[in-house]
Amino acid sequence: MAFFNFVPMTKADLFENITKKQSYLCVGLDTDINKIPAHLHAFEDPVYQFNKQIIDAVADYCVAFKLNTAFYEASGIQGWNSLQKTLAYIPKDIFTIADAKRGDIGNTSSLYARAFFDKAASGFDFDAVTVAPYMGADSVQPFLSFPGKWVILLALTSNEGSQDFQTLKLEGGKTLFETVLGKSQAWGSTDQLMYVVGATQAAALQKVRQLVPDHFLLIPGVGAQGGSLEEVSRQGMNRQCGLLVNASRSIIYASSGDDFALAAKKEAQKMQQEMLILLKKYLKGH
Amino acid sequence: MAFFNFVPMTKADLFENITKKQSYLCVGLDTDINKIPAHLHAFEDPVYQFNKQIIDAVADYCVAFKLNTAFYEASGIQGWNSLQKTLAYIPKDIFTIADAKRGDIGNTSSLYARAFFDKAASGFDFDAVTVAPYMGADSVQPFLSFPGKWVILLALTSNEGSQDFQTLKLEGGKTLFETVLGKSQAWGSTDQLMYVVGATQAAALQKVRQLVPDHFLLIPGVGAQGGSLEEVSRQGMNRQCGLLVNASRSIIYASSGDDFALAAKKEAQKMQQEMLILLKKYLKGH
Repeated sequence: MAFFNFVPMTKADLFENITKKQSYLCVGLDTDINKIPAHLHAFEDPVYQFNKQIIDAVADYCVAFKLNTAFYEASGIQGWNSLQKTLAYIPKDIFTIADAKRGDIGNTSSLYARAFFDKAASGFDFDAVTVAPYMGADSVQPFLSFPGKWVILLALTSNEGSQDFQTLKLEGGKTLFETVLGKSQAWGSTDQLMYVVGATQAAALQKVRQLVPDHFLLIPGVGAQGGSLEEVSRQGMNRQCGLLVNASRSIIYASSGDDFALAAKKEAQKMQQEMLILLKKYLKGH
Repeated sequence: MAFFNFVPMTKADLFENITKKQSYLCVGLDTDINKIPAHLHAFEDPVYQFNKQIIDAVADYCVAFKLNTAFYEASGIQGWNSLQKTLAYIPKDIFTIADAKRGDIGNTSSLYARAFFDKAASGFDFDAVTVAPYMGADSVQPFLSFPGKWVILLALTSNEGSQDFQTLKLEGGKTLFETVLGKSQAWGSTDQLMYVVGATQAAALQKVRQLVPDHFLLIPGVGAQGGSLEEVSRQGMNRQCGLLVNASRSIIYASSGDDFALAAKKEAQKMQQEMLILLKKYLKGH
C-alpha cells in the first residue's frame, strides 16, 4: 500500500510529542461502568461521557491513550459502541493503543488487525495494538503488515503470573521473555514494534534495554500496581525517551465524585511534572 | 455462587453427547463476510444468515460450535451483533466456544470472563473461552472462577509459529508447552479446563496425553490446515473420548454457491461417519 488514509505516527513523531509536552504519560481508559460517578448514569452512554471528560481533562499532559478492550467487551455491544465513540473523540495528535492482547494463527490475526486498524472495515483505527507472543512469528506478522501501524508485544508483564512462564530459563540460560525480545526484533522495525514491560519489573529493565536499546517500551504498572516512575525512567529511558508509562486507575478514578475530571487532570499534571524532571535527568545524549 | 442461570455442561455431559451423536466434531464458524455466497448479501445481516443455515445443516453431526471472535470483530459493532445472534441461535445442548485467545492481568481477565460468560452484563453466555497462557496463573484464574464455565488454554498450536516459543526447551529438559500443561493443571479441574493442541502436532499428542490423560483437548487444524483425523484420534482419544476436533473452512466453505448449506451438511456428515468408526476403534476401555 502506497498511501495512508490516516496520519501514521513514527517513532520520531512520538518523540517530538514527548519533547513538546515534556511528558511520556499514557492514560489508560480502563473505564468500568460500575466504577464511574453516579451522576453520569443519567447520560445515554455513561462510559463515553466519562471518557470524554477525562480526555478533555488530561489531553494536555499525555502523549498516548490506552483503551483496554476488556472493559468495553464486558458490556457487550454497548461497550463496543462506547469504545468506538471514545476512539473517535481522542485528538489526532495523541497516540492510541488498543490494549487487546490479541494473537492467533495468520489468517485470524489478519482479521484482528482489520478489527483494530482498518476503519473502513471495523470502524476502528487505533495506532497500535497489544499482541501476545505465545503463538510466534506468523501470529504477529499480519499486524505488522499494516503500514504505519504498531504492534506492542508482551514481553515481561506487571502481574505475579509473569513468573509462571516469562521468567523461566530456557536451555542456554536466557529467559523466555529475553527470547521473545531477541527473536521478535527480526519481525519488524523500531517504527512498528514496541514491547510491554511492567513497571513492577524495574530490576529487569536494564537487561531489557541491553536487548532492545532503541525500541519504545509500554510500561504499565505505575500507580495502582505499585511500580516506581523514577526507577522505570532511570533504567528504561533512551535517546528518544523510548518510554510510554501508563497509569489508569490512579488517574481516572482519582476522585469518585462530581469532580472526577478535575481530580484526573491534577493527577495527570502531577505525573507530567515528575516526567519533566525525569526527562531532564535521564534523557540520554541531550 | 450457588445457582446457575444456565445449564452448565460437564465433562460427563460432553461425553454423553459424543456417545449419542457418535461424533466429536466441533464446527468452526469462522465466517468471513468476504467469503460467503453472494446471494446472502441481500439479507440485512448476511453473516448471521449464513451461520443460521450452517447451524441448521450441521447441528446433528457436531457436539460443539467454535466461534472465532476475530472474524466478527473485523466488522466492528455489526460483527458483534452477528456474533450475539449466532450464539443465541445455537441449540442449547451443543457446547459453545468463544475462540478469543484472551488473557490479561487479573482484574482485566475478570472483565473478559464477564464479556464471554455473563449474559446479563454482555449479552454473551458461551460455555468456554480460549485463553493464552503467557501471562500465567492470575491471568487465567478469573475465567475459572465462573462456575460451570470452561477455559481452553493454548498449549501447542497448529501454526508454524508454534515452533518459535512453545517447543523450546526449558532448563531441565521440558518444553514450554509441556510446562504450560504441567503447571496449569493445578489451576482448575478437568471439568473446567481443556487444552488446545493443533492437529498438525499429532506426533506430540502422545506426550500431551502422558501429561494430561483425563482432560479434553480442542484440536484445530484438521481440514484446511492439513492435520489427520485418524492420527489425532489414535494418539489423543481417552476413556471419555477427550477430543473435540474442529473443522472450519473445510465445512463452512465446502461450496461457495447457493448449495453451501447442503455441502456443509455433507462434509460434516462425512466427518461424523469417520468419527463413528474411530470411536469404535480407539475409545479406551469400551
